Amino acid sequence: MILLLKQLELQLSTRPGGRSARVRDAVLEAVHVELVHRGYLGMTVENVADRAGVHKTTVYRRWGTVDVLIADALDRGRDAGWTAPDTGSAEGDLIALAREVVDTFTDPGRSRVPIALVAAALQSGRARQAKRDYYTARHEAAGVIAERAVERGELPPQADPAELARQTCAPLFYRVFVSGEPLDHATADRAARAALAAARAGLF
Amino acid sequence: MILLLKQLELQLSTRPGGRSARVRDAVLEAVHVELVHRGYLGMTVENVADRAGVHKTTVYRRWGTVDVLIADALDRGRDAGWTAPDTGSAEGDLIALAREVVDTFTDPGRSRVPIALVAAALQSGRARQAKRDYYTARHEAAGVIAERAVERGELPPQADPAELARQTCAPLFYRVFVSGEPLDHATADRAARAALAAARAGLF
Repeated sequence: MILLLKQLELQLSTRPGGRSARVRDAVLEAVHVELVHRGYLGMTVENVADRAGVHKTTVYRRWGTVDVLIADALDRGRDAGWTAPDTGSAEGDLIALAREVVDTFTDPGRSRVPIALVAAALQSGRARQAKRDYYTARHEAAGVIAERAVERGELPPQADPAELARQTCAPLFYRVFVSGEPLDHATADRAARAALAAARAGLF
Repeated sequence: MILLLKQLELQLSTRPGGRSARVRDAVLEAVHVELVHRGYLGMTVENVADRAGVHKTTVYRRWGTVDVLIADALDRGRDAGWTAPDTGSAEGDLIALAREVVDTFTDPGRSRVPIALVAAALQSGRARQAKRDYYTARHEAAGVIAERAVERGELPPQADPAELARQTCAPLFYRVFVSGEPLDHATADRAARAALAAARAGLF
């Protein structure tokens, strides 16, 4: 019963209902679909409004630009939450986390979303702030991997539990956005093991 | 004398002389200055032509767009070469390398150049290819850090000598382009030591 109340409370707080919330849901869902289908460069406020079945002046008035639409979609994604893998070992958790990143970026449709976010953040302060908040929330949620490993005695105490997840993901994002090199599961596993070796050495 | 001949050869091969080469030098130098002063979003073919003292139709005919200008400037930067730090130890070399990245990104003027390159590569295939070639050359040049460390007996043999440099730089680029978190020398030193711990564990 308490659980049910908590679920209801969660629903009420994240979906306050009403026309305004329904419009936001429809528009932000359309942002996501448009990003997957057209990518950042092909996105327009008109296309998003069309796909959401909302008049374009409504979208212009409430969001203004594509970058603000992307930022708001990111805020919603952050609120929806994400749970770190829980495989029973730090190595398993980190490999699962790294493969999640690789699987996203090697799927042409899914990769367009994070690529669009980085592109939008390079052009707009509002998108930059949303991206920062999004990754702050992600790092916080991923910190549990290090915390559980410390509890199990797999790792020495970590000054910054998020650093293990950051270091696991960084070489993968580096290949996507900086060097332009390809990604595969071997790259993911190596990044996970490299981060773990540094954490074992007490560097985080 | 042999050295002098080699220098001359190098000059001749990288600066073949003639009006066409002088125009390219002036235009690409102007691209660099415009990037530092205005950033990627503020850059136009007209401003570059003005600063270079070249007619804008010349620039349009030869390069066409801002992205192609940036790609060509990157190609020239790659040809100009870069030398990895040589401090006598792997840790010293990696810390110097990491601090070089941090010093670039914490200088508002200098950081505009690599940020513009990433932005251009997200929008243009030509810039993407130039960026890939640039980082391939950088990784090759940085591989010497691992090779010297193996020779000195500091590290076990490395399957991919470039990986140590990639892993050192990745957490720094991750903060700039993905999480939006700040950089300082402590972050640089930690990234260097983390990569070294993984290399010592034989993971690269």
